Amino acid sequence: MFDPMEFEIDQPESVVYAVGIGPGDPYYMTQEAHNVLESVDAICGYKLYLDLIEPEFPCEEYYSTGMTKEIDRCRWALEKASTGKRVALVCSGDAGVYGMASPLLELAEEYPDVTIEVVPGLTAALSGGAVLGAPLAHDFCVISLSDRLTPWEVIEKRLACAAMGDFCLALYNPSSKGRPDYLQKAVRILRANGKGPETVCGLVRNIGREGQTSCVLTLAELESTPVDMFTTVYIGNAATRAVSGWMVTPRGYRK
Amino acid sequence: MFDPMEFEIDQPESVVYAVGIGPGDPYYMTQEAHNVLESVDAICGYKLYLDLIEPEFPCEEYYSTGMTKEIDRCRWALEKASTGKRVALVCSGDAGVYGMASPLLELAEEYPDVTIEVVPGLTAALSGGAVLGAPLAHDFCVISLSDRLTPWEVIEKRLACAAMGDFCLALYNPSSKGRPDYLQKAVRILRANGKGPETVCGLVRNIGREGQTSCVLTLAELESTPVDMFTTVYIGNAATRAVSGWMVTPRGYRK
Repeated sequence: MFDPMEFEIDQPESVVYAVGIGPGDPYYMTQEAHNVLESVDAICGYKLYLDLIEPEFPCEEYYSTGMTKEIDRCRWALEKASTGKRVALVCSGDAGVYGMASPLLELAEEYPDVTIEVVPGLTAALSGGAVLGAPLAHDFCVISLSDRLTPWEVIEKRLACAAMGDFCLALYNPSSKGRPDYLQKAVRILRANGKGPETVCGLVRNIGREGQTSCVLTLAELESTPVDMFTTVYIGNAATRAVSGWMVTPRGYRK
Repeated sequence: MFDPMEFEIDQPESVVYAVGIGPGDPYYMTQEAHNVLESVDAICGYKLYLDLIEPEFPCEEYYSTGMTKEIDRCRWALEKASTGKRVALVCSGDAGVYGMASPLLELAEEYPDVTIEVVPGLTAALSGGAVLGAPLAHDFCVISLSDRLTPWEVIEKRLACAAMGDFCLALYNPSSKGRPDYLQKAVRILRANGKGPETVCGLVRNIGREGQTSCVLTLAELESTPVDMFTTVYIGNAATRAVSGWMVTPRGYRK
Protein backbone atom coordinates (compact mmCIF):
# COMPACT_ATOMS: atom_id res chain seq x y z
CA MET A 1 0.00 0.00 0.00
CA PHE A 2 1.15 3.52 -0.69
CA ASP A 3 2.26 5.24 2.49
CA PRO A 4 2.53 9.01 2.03
CA MET A 5 4.62 9.40 5.19
CA GLU A 6 7.23 6.98 3.97
CA PHE A 7 7.28 8.60 0.56
CA GLU A 8 7.95 11.95 2.16
CA ILE A 9 10.88 10.62 4.19
CA ASP A 10 12.45 9.09 1.08
CA GLN A 11 12.26 12.39 -0.81
CA PRO A 12 15.58 14.14 -0.94
CA GLU A 13 15.54 17.54 0.68
CA SER A 14 16.71 20.67 -1.07
CA VAL A 15 19.43 21.76 1.32
CA VAL A 16 22.89 23.28 1.20
CA TYR A 17 25.12 22.84 4.23
CA ALA A 18 28.02 25.29 4.55
CA VAL A 19 30.45 23.01 6.36
CA GLY A 20 33.57 24.18 8.21
CA ILE A 21 36.04 21.30 8.17
CA GLY A 22 38.72 22.92 10.36
CA PRO A 23 42.38 22.59 9.32
CA GLY A 24 41.60 19.79 6.86
CA ASP A 25 42.12 16.37 8.41
CA PRO A 26 38.78 14.79 9.39
CA TYR A 27 40.32 14.23 12.85
CA TYR A 28 39.74 17.94 13.57
CA MET A 29 36.15 18.02 12.29
CA THR A 30 33.13 17.92 14.55
CA GLN A 31 30.84 14.91 14.58
CA GLU A 32 28.19 17.16 13.03
CA ALA A 33 30.40 17.99 10.04
CA HIS A 34 31.31 14.32 9.72
CA ASN A 35 27.67 13.24 9.65
CA VAL A 36 26.74 15.87 7.07
CA LEU A 37 29.59 14.93 4.72
CA GLU A 38 28.64 11.27 5.02
CA SER A 39 24.98 11.88 4.20
CA VAL A 40 24.95 14.35 1.31
CA ASP A 41 24.48 13.68 -2.42
CA ALA A 42 27.12 16.15 -3.57
CA ILE A 43 30.17 17.86 -2.09
CA CYS A 44 31.52 21.06 -3.55
CA GLY A 45 34.51 23.22 -2.66
CA TYR A 46 37.97 24.51 -3.41
CA LYS A 47 40.01 21.68 -4.91
CA LEU A 48 42.74 21.63 -2.24
CA TYR A 49 40.18 21.03 0.54
CA LEU A 50 38.25 18.41 -1.38
CA ASP A 51 41.46 16.44 -1.85
CA LEU A 52 41.86 16.40 1.94
CA ILE A 53 38.45 14.89 2.62
CA GLU A 54 37.66 12.81 -0.47
CA PRO A 55 39.35 9.61 0.79
CA GLU A 56 37.17 9.60 3.92
CA PHE A 57 33.90 10.75 2.35
CA PRO A 58 33.21 9.04 -0.96
CA CYS A 59 30.25 10.85 -2.45
CA GLU A 60 28.09 10.46 -5.55
CA GLU A 61 29.22 13.78 -6.95
CA TYR A 62 32.16 16.10 -6.36
CA TYR A 63 32.48 19.60 -7.79
CA SER A 64 35.60 21.68 -7.30
CA THR A 65 36.75 25.03 -8.64
CA GLY A 66 39.75 27.29 -8.14
CA MET A 67 40.57 29.69 -5.35
CA THR A 68 38.68 32.81 -6.45
CA LYS A 69 35.59 31.03 -7.75
CA GLU A 70 33.59 31.24 -4.52
CA ILE A 71 30.42 32.66 -6.08
CA ASP A 72 30.53 30.01 -8.77
CA ARG A 73 30.64 27.29 -6.08
CA CYS A 74 27.75 28.83 -4.13
CA ARG A 75 25.68 29.05 -7.32
CA TRP A 76 26.47 25.44 -8.22
CA ALA A 77 25.48 24.22 -4.74
CA LEU A 78 22.19 26.15 -4.80
CA GLU A 79 21.31 25.00 -8.33
CA LYS A 80 22.05 21.39 -7.40
CA ALA A 81 20.04 21.64 -4.18
CA SER A 82 17.11 23.17 -6.03
CA THR A 83 16.79 19.91 -7.99
CA GLY A 84 16.03 18.18 -4.68
CA LYS A 85 19.57 17.21 -3.66
CA ARG A 86 21.43 17.52 -0.37
CA VAL A 87 24.68 19.41 -0.97
CA ALA A 88 27.68 20.22 1.22
CA LEU A 89 29.66 23.35 0.44
CA VAL A 90 33.01 22.77 2.12
CA CYS A 91 35.12 25.53 3.71
CA SER A 92 38.46 25.22 5.47
CA GLY A 93 38.38 26.43 9.07
CA ASP A 94 34.96 27.74 10.06
CA ALA A 95 32.13 28.12 7.57
CA GLY A 96 31.45 31.66 8.77
CA VAL A 97 34.85 33.25 9.45
CA TYR A 98 35.97 34.61 6.03
CA GLY A 99 34.08 31.55 4.80
CA MET A 100 31.42 30.58 2.31
CA ALA A 101 28.38 30.87 4.60
CA SER A 102 28.24 34.60 3.92
CA PRO A 103 28.07 34.64 0.08
CA LEU A 104 25.91 31.50 0.19
CA LEU A 105 23.28 33.14 2.41
CA GLU A 106 23.27 36.25 0.22
CA LEU A 107 22.78 34.24 -2.98
CA ALA A 108 20.23 31.96 -1.33
CA GLU A 109 17.70 34.80 -1.39
CA GLU A 110 17.22 33.84 -5.07
CA TYR A 111 16.43 30.21 -4.11
CA PRO A 112 13.56 30.41 -1.62
CA ASP A 113 12.92 26.66 -1.81
CA VAL A 114 16.43 25.73 -0.73
CA THR A 115 17.17 25.36 2.99
CA ILE A 116 20.55 26.55 4.29
CA GLU A 117 22.35 25.14 7.32
CA VAL A 118 25.67 26.42 8.65
CA VAL A 119 27.93 23.82 10.29
CA PRO A 120 30.74 25.48 12.26
CA GLY A 121 34.36 24.30 12.36
CA LEU A 122 37.68 25.17 13.97
CA THR A 123 38.95 28.40 12.48
CA ALA A 124 42.76 28.78 12.37
CA ALA A 125 42.76 31.17 15.34
CA LEU A 126 41.67 28.23 17.51
CA SER A 127 43.43 25.28 15.88
CA GLY A 128 46.73 27.14 15.63
CA GLY A 129 46.21 28.72 19.03
CA ALA A 130 46.14 25.24 20.58
CA VAL A 131 49.52 24.48 19.00
CA LEU A 132 51.05 27.55 20.67
CA GLY A 133 49.29 27.03 24.02
CA ALA A 134 46.78 29.72 24.91
CA PRO A 135 47.59 32.88 22.92
CA LEU A 136 43.94 34.05 22.74
CA ALA A 137 42.86 33.38 26.32
CA HIS A 138 41.60 36.94 26.78
CA ASP A 139 39.79 39.45 24.52
CA PHE A 140 41.11 39.11 20.97
CA CYS A 141 40.71 40.26 17.35
CA VAL A 142 40.95 38.29 14.15
CA ILE A 143 42.14 40.37 11.19
CA SER A 144 42.89 39.27 7.64
CA LEU A 145 45.79 41.10 5.94
CA SER A 146 44.46 40.22 2.49
CA ASP A 147 43.42 43.33 0.56
CA ARG A 148 41.79 41.32 -2.20
CA LEU A 149 38.29 42.14 -0.87
CA THR A 150 39.08 44.89 1.64
CA PRO A 151 40.84 48.24 1.08
CA TRP A 152 44.21 48.33 2.84
CA GLU A 153 43.21 51.53 4.69
CA VAL A 154 40.43 49.61 6.47
CA ILE A 155 42.94 46.94 7.50
CA GLU A 156 45.37 49.60 8.76
CA LYS A 157 42.67 51.26 10.83
CA ARG A 158 41.70 47.95 12.42
CA LEU A 159 45.28 47.07 13.27
CA ALA A 160 45.68 50.45 14.94
CA CYS A 161 42.45 50.02 16.94
CA ALA A 162 43.42 46.48 17.98
CA ALA A 163 46.75 47.75 19.27
CA MET A 164 45.16 50.70 21.10
CA GLY A 165 42.76 48.32 22.84
CA ASP A 166 45.63 45.97 23.84
CA PHE A 167 43.82 43.06 22.22
CA CYS A 168 45.48 39.76 21.43
CA LEU A 169 45.44 39.22 17.68
CA ALA A 170 45.29 36.41 15.19
CA LEU A 171 46.35 37.56 11.71
CA TYR A 172 45.13 35.60 8.69
CA ASN A 173 46.65 35.76 5.19
CA PRO A 174 49.79 37.50 6.45
CA SER A 175 51.55 37.23 3.10
CA SER A 176 51.28 36.18 -0.51
CA LYS A 177 53.39 36.44 -3.65
CA GLY A 178 51.96 39.82 -4.55
CA ARG A 179 52.37 41.32 -1.06
CA PRO A 180 55.39 39.81 0.70
CA ASP A 181 55.81 42.78 3.08
CA TYR A 182 52.27 43.11 4.48
CA LEU A 183 53.10 41.50 7.82
CA GLN A 184 56.02 43.89 8.24
CA LYS A 185 53.71 46.82 7.54
CA ALA A 186 51.17 45.44 10.00
CA VAL A 187 53.78 45.02 12.74
CA ARG A 188 54.89 48.63 12.27
CA ILE A 189 51.29 49.85 12.65
CA LEU A 190 50.85 47.77 15.81
CA ARG A 191 54.08 49.17 17.27
CA ALA A 192 53.15 52.75 16.38
CA ASN A 193 49.87 52.27 18.27
CA GLY A 194 51.09 50.88 21.55
CA LYS A 195 52.30 47.27 21.17
CA GLY A 196 55.76 47.03 22.73
CA PRO A 197 58.70 45.38 20.93
CA GLU A 198 58.85 42.64 23.59
CA THR A 199 55.19 41.64 23.07
CA VAL A 200 55.07 37.84 22.90
CA CYS A 201 54.05 36.55 19.47
CA GLY A 202 53.73 33.19 17.76
CA LEU A 203 53.66 31.64 14.31
CA VAL A 204 52.04 28.38 13.22
CA ARG A 205 52.55 27.05 9.71
CA ASN A 206 50.53 24.23 8.13
CA ILE A 207 48.19 23.91 11.11
CA GLY A 208 47.07 20.32 11.61
CA ARG A 209 48.77 19.21 8.41
CA GLU A 210 51.94 17.37 7.50
CA GLY A 211 54.98 19.50 8.25
CA GLN A 212 53.30 21.61 10.93
CA THR A 213 55.79 23.98 12.54
CA SER A 214 55.46 26.71 15.15
CA CYS A 215 57.56 29.16 17.12
CA VAL A 216 57.25 31.80 19.81
CA LEU A 217 59.07 35.09 19.30
CA THR A 218 58.87 38.80 20.13
CA LEU A 219 57.07 41.44 18.09
CA ALA A 220 60.45 43.02 17.25
CA GLU A 221 61.64 39.66 15.90
CA LEU A 222 58.37 39.14 14.02
CA GLU A 223 58.96 42.34 12.06
CA SER A 224 61.96 40.77 10.33
CA THR A 225 60.64 37.21 10.04
CA PRO A 226 59.41 36.19 6.58
CA VAL A 227 56.14 34.23 6.59
CA ASP A 228 54.10 32.65 3.81
CA MET A 229 50.41 32.25 3.09
CA PHE A 230 50.23 28.96 5.02
CA THR A 231 51.11 30.73 8.27
CA THR A 232 48.82 32.16 10.96
CA VAL A 233 50.31 34.89 13.16
CA TYR A 234 49.47 35.46 16.84
CA ILE A 235 50.26 38.64 18.74
CA GLY A 236 49.84 38.81 22.50
CA ASN A 237 48.51 41.54 24.77
CA ALA A 238 50.65 43.33 27.35
CA ALA A 239 50.26 40.44 29.81
CA THR A 240 51.06 37.56 27.42
CA ARG A 241 54.07 35.48 28.48
CA ALA A 242 56.34 32.85 26.99
CA VAL A 243 56.09 29.90 29.40
CA SER A 244 58.27 26.82 28.77
CA GLY A 245 58.07 27.38 25.02
CA TRP A 246 54.32 28.06 25.04
CA MET A 247 52.58 31.38 24.31
CA VAL A 248 50.24 32.05 27.25
CA THR A 249 47.85 34.95 27.72
CA PRO A 250 46.47 35.15 31.27
CA ARG A 251 42.70 34.92 31.56
CA GLY A 252 42.51 38.20 33.40
CA TYR A 253 44.35 41.21 34.69
CA ARG A 254 43.67 40.30 38.32
CA LYS A 255 44.79 37.15 40.14
CA MET B 1 59.81 -13.19 28.23
CA PHE B 2 60.05 -9.62 29.39
CA ASP B 3 59.82 -7.23 26.49
CA PRO B 4 60.98 -3.73 27.46
CA MET B 5 59.29 -2.12 24.44
CA GLU B 6 55.93 -3.56 25.34
CA PHE B 7 56.40 -2.55 28.95
CA GLU B 8 57.07 1.00 27.84
CA ILE B 9 53.95 1.13 25.71
CA ASP B 10 51.83 -0.16 28.57
CA GLN B 11 53.14 2.50 30.93
CA PRO B 12 50.67 5.27 31.40
CA GLU B 13 52.00 8.65 30.35
CA SER B 14 51.95 11.68 32.61
CA VAL B 15 49.83 13.99 30.51
CA VAL B 16 47.10 16.58 30.96
CA TYR B 17 44.93 17.40 27.95
CA ALA B 18 43.08 20.73 28.10
CA VAL B 19 40.05 19.73 26.03
CA GLY B 20 37.59 22.17 24.48
CA ILE B 21 34.26 20.37 24.14
CA GLY B 22 32.37 23.11 22.29
CA PRO B 23 28.79 23.91 23.37
CA GLY B 24 28.49 20.67 25.35
CA ASP B 25 26.88 17.92 23.32
CA PRO B 26 29.49 15.44 22.01
CA TYR B 27 27.94 16.00 18.56
CA TYR B 28 29.79 19.34 18.39
CA MET B 29 33.15 17.98 19.56
CA THR B 30 36.01 17.20 17.24
CA GLN B 31 37.13 13.63 16.67
CA GLU B 32 40.34 14.54 18.47
CA ALA B 33 38.47 15.63 21.62
CA HIS B 34 36.35 12.50 21.39
CA ASN B 35 39.39 10.23 21.20
CA VAL B 36 41.08 11.95 24.14
CA LEU B 37 38.02 11.70 26.39
CA GLU B 38 37.66 8.03 25.50
CA SER B 39 41.27 7.21 26.31
CA VAL B 40 42.08 9.06 29.55
CA ASP B 41 42.19 7.68 33.11
CA ALA B 42 40.54 10.72 34.69
CA ILE B 43 38.31 13.59 33.57
CA CYS B 44 38.10 16.79 35.56
CA GLY B 45 36.06 19.95 35.07
CA TYR B 46 33.24 22.22 36.12
CA LYS B 47 30.31 20.08 37.22
CA LEU B 48 27.81 21.38 34.64
CA TYR B 49 30.08 20.37 31.74
CA LEU B 50 30.94 16.97 33.18
CA ASP B 51 27.23 16.20 33.44
CA LEU B 52 26.95 16.88 29.70
CA ILE B 53 29.66 14.41 28.70
CA GLU B 54 29.59 11.74 31.42
CA PRO B 55 26.93 9.56 29.73
CA GLU B 56 29.05 9.26 26.58
CA PHE B 57 32.48 8.96 28.23
CA PRO B 58 32.43 6.64 31.21
CA CYS B 59 35.82 7.07 32.87
CA GLU B 60 37.60 5.49 35.83
CA GLU B 61 37.67 8.74 37.73
CA TYR B 62 35.71 12.00 37.58
CA TYR B 63 36.58 15.12 39.54
CA SER B 64 34.39 18.20 39.46
CA THR B 65 34.42 21.49 41.32
CA GLY B 66 32.41 24.71 41.28
CA MET B 67 32.53 27.61 38.89
CA THR B 68 35.34 29.69 40.39
CA LYS B 69 37.62 26.76 41.32
CA GLU B 70 39.67 26.78 38.09
CA ILE B 71 43.09 26.75 39.78
CA ASP B 72 41.99 23.93 42.04
CA ARG B 73 41.03 21.85 38.98
CA CYS B 74 44.32 22.57 37.20
CA ARG B 75 46.25 21.58 40.32
CA TRP B 76 44.24 18.37 40.69
CA ALA B 77 44.84 17.43 37.03
CA LEU B 78 48.59 18.08 37.30
CA GLU B 79 48.91 16.16 40.57
CA LYS B 80 47.00 13.23 39.14
CA ALA B 81 49.07 13.25 35.94
CA SER B 82 52.30 13.38 37.93
CA THR B 83 51.41 9.94 39.33
CA GLY B 84 51.62 8.60 35.78
CA LYS B 85 48.00 9.08 34.73
CA ARG B 86 46.44 10.52 31.58
CA VAL B 87 44.03 13.28 32.56
CA ALA B 88 41.55 15.41 30.60
CA LEU B 89 40.74 18.86 31.90
CA VAL B 90 37.45 19.74 30.26
CA CYS B 91 36.46 23.27 29.17
CA SER B 92 33.28 24.39 27.48
CA GLY B 93 33.87 26.03 24.10
CA ASP B 94 37.55 26.22 23.23
CA ALA B 95 40.29 25.23 25.68
CA GLY B 96 42.16 28.45 25.01
CA VAL B 97 39.55 31.19 24.67
CA TYR B 98 38.88 32.32 28.29
CA GLY B 99 39.55 28.64 29.00
CA MET B 100 41.65 26.44 31.23
CA ALA B 101 44.67 26.02 28.93
CA SER B 102 46.06 29.32 30.15
CA PRO B 103 46.12 28.71 33.94
CA LEU B 104 47.07 25.08 33.31
CA LEU B 105 50.17 26.02 31.28
CA GLU B 106 51.19 28.57 33.91
CA LEU B 107 50.87 26.06 36.77
CA ALA B 108 52.53 23.31 34.72
CA GLU B 109 55.89 25.06 35.14
CA GLU B 110 55.90 23.45 38.61
CA TYR B 111 55.42 19.96 37.08
CA PRO B 112 58.24 19.54 34.56
CA ASP B 113 57.54 15.80 34.17
CA VAL B 114 53.96 16.32 33.06
CA THR B 115 53.24 16.79 29.35
CA ILE B 116 50.51 19.27 28.33
CA GLU B 117 48.42 19.05 25.18
CA VAL B 118 45.78 21.58 24.16
CA VAL B 119 42.79 20.22 22.22
CA PRO B 120 40.79 23.02 20.60
CA GLY B 121 37.00 23.20 20.44
CA LEU B 122 34.23 25.39 19.05
CA THR B 123 34.11 28.59 21.05
CA ALA B 124 30.67 30.24 21.32
CA ALA B 125 31.58 32.91 18.75
CA LEU B 126 31.65 30.15 16.12
CA SER B 127 28.93 27.77 17.34
CA GLY B 128 26.46 30.59 17.96
CA GLY B 129 27.59 32.39 14.82
CA ALA B 130 26.50 29.38 12.75
CA VAL B 131 23.02 29.61 14.30
CA LEU B 132 22.71 33.23 13.16
CA GLY B 133 24.26 32.66 9.73
CA ALA B 134 27.57 34.42 9.19
CA PRO B 135 27.84 37.32 11.66
CA LEU B 136 31.66 37.12 11.92
CA ALA B 137 32.53 36.68 8.24
CA HIS B 138 34.96 39.60 8.30
CA ASP B 139 37.46 40.95 10.87
CA PHE B 140 36.02 40.56 14.36
CA CYS B 141 36.67 40.92 18.10
CA VAL B 142 35.69 38.70 20.98
CA ILE B 143 35.20 40.57 24.25
CA SER B 144 34.02 39.28 27.61
CA LEU B 145 31.89 41.70 29.64
CA SER B 146 32.73 39.91 32.88
CA ASP B 147 34.73 42.13 35.22
CA ARG B 148 35.51 39.28 37.60
CA LEU B 149 39.11 39.02 36.32
CA THR B 150 39.38 42.24 34.28
CA PRO B 151 38.87 45.87 35.39
CA TRP B 152 35.79 47.39 33.77
CA GLU B 153 37.87 50.31 32.40
CA VAL B 154 39.86 47.82 30.27
CA ILE B 155 36.62 46.37 28.91
CA GLU B 156 35.29 49.86 28.15
CA LYS B 157 38.46 50.78 26.28
CA ARG B 158 38.28 47.62 24.18
CA LEU B 159 34.62 48.18 23.32
CA ALA B 160 35.47 51.71 22.19
CA CYS B 161 38.40 50.50 20.06
CA ALA B 162 36.31 47.70 18.52
CA ALA B 163 33.64 50.23 17.53
CA MET B 164 36.19 52.68 16.14
CA GLY B 165 37.69 49.94 13.98
CA ASP B 166 34.22 48.90 12.70
CA PHE B 167 34.88 45.33 13.82
CA CYS B 168 32.16 42.73 14.13
CA LEU B 169 31.89 41.65 17.76
CA ALA B 170 30.99 38.61 19.78
CA LEU B 171 30.30 39.51 23.42
CA TYR B 172 30.69 36.80 26.06
CA ASN B 173 29.24 36.94 29.58
CA PRO B 174 26.91 39.83 28.70
CA SER B 175 25.07 39.67 31.99
CA SER B 176 24.86 38.06 35.40
CA LYS B 177 22.89 38.55 38.60
CA GLY B 178 25.37 41.06 39.96
CA ARG B 179 25.59 43.11 36.75
CA PRO B 180 22.27 43.03 34.88
CA ASP B 181 22.98 46.29 33.00
CA TYR B 182 26.45 45.57 31.56
CA LEU B 183 25.21 44.89 28.06
CA GLN B 184 23.31 48.16 28.08
CA LYS B 185 26.47 49.98 29.16
CA ALA B 186 28.44 48.19 26.44
CA VAL B 187 25.93 49.14 23.74
CA ARG B 188 26.12 52.79 24.80
CA ILE B 189 29.93 52.74 24.51
CA LEU B 190 29.71 51.14 21.06
CA ARG B 191 27.20 53.76 19.93
CA ALA B 192 29.29 56.62 21.33
CA ASN B 193 32.25 55.35 19.30
CA GLY B 194 30.71 54.98 15.88
CA LYS B 195 28.33 52.00 15.73
CA GLY B 196 25.05 53.21 14.25
CA PRO B 197 21.66 52.43 15.85
CA GLU B 198 20.66 50.34 12.80
CA THR B 199 23.73 48.07 13.07
CA VAL B 200 22.52 44.50 12.65
CA CYS B 201 22.94 42.42 15.82
CA GLY B 202 22.04 38.92 16.96
CA LEU B 203 21.47 36.93 20.14
CA VAL B 204 21.84 33.21 20.67
CA ARG B 205 20.80 31.59 23.95
CA ASN B 206 21.69 28.04 25.03
CA ILE B 207 23.86 27.41 21.96
CA GLY B 208 23.69 23.77 20.88
CA ARG B 209 21.61 22.83 23.92
CA GLU B 210 17.99 22.09 24.61
CA GLY B 211 15.90 25.23 24.29
CA GLN B 212 18.27 27.02 21.92
CA THR B 213 16.80 30.32 20.76
CA SER B 214 18.11 33.12 18.60
CA CYS B 215 17.03 36.42 17.09
CA VAL B 216 18.31 39.17 14.83
CA LEU B 217 17.72 42.78 15.89
CA THR B 218 19.21 46.28 15.63
CA LEU B 219 21.75 47.77 18.01
CA ALA B 220 19.12 50.27 19.16
CA GLU B 221 16.80 47.36 20.01
CA LEU B 222 19.63 45.47 21.70
CA GLU B 223 20.12 48.32 24.14
CA SER B 224 16.73 47.66 25.68
CA THR B 225 16.73 43.85 25.40
CA PRO B 226 17.41 41.94 28.63
CA VAL B 227 19.83 39.02 28.25
CA ASP B 228 21.13 36.42 30.68
CA MET B 229 24.44 34.66 31.23
CA PHE B 230 23.50 31.85 28.81
CA THR B 231 23.39 34.29 25.90
CA THR B 232 26.11 35.25 23.40
CA VAL B 233 25.70 38.62 21.69
CA TYR B 234 26.79 39.43 18.12
CA ILE B 235 27.20 42.93 16.74
CA GLY B 236 27.76 43.52 13.05
CA ASN B 237 30.01 45.93 11.20
CA ALA B 238 28.68 48.73 8.98
CA ALA B 239 28.13 46.29 6.09
CA THR B 240 26.31 43.53 8.03
CA ARG B 241 22.81 42.82 6.75
CA ALA B 242 19.73 40.93 7.88
CA VAL B 243 19.00 38.48 5.03
CA SER B 244 15.88 36.28 5.24
CA GLY B 245 16.17 36.16 9.03
CA TRP B 246 19.93 35.49 9.00
CA MET B 247 22.68 37.86 10.18
CA VAL B 248 25.18 38.12 7.33
CA THR B 249 28.43 40.06 7.23
CA PRO B 250 29.90 40.31 3.72
CA ARG B 251 33.38 38.83 3.32
CA GLY B 252 34.73 42.08 1.96
CA TYR B 253 34.10 45.72 1.21
CA ARG B 254 34.50 45.23 -2.53
CA LYS B 255 32.44 43.01 -4.78
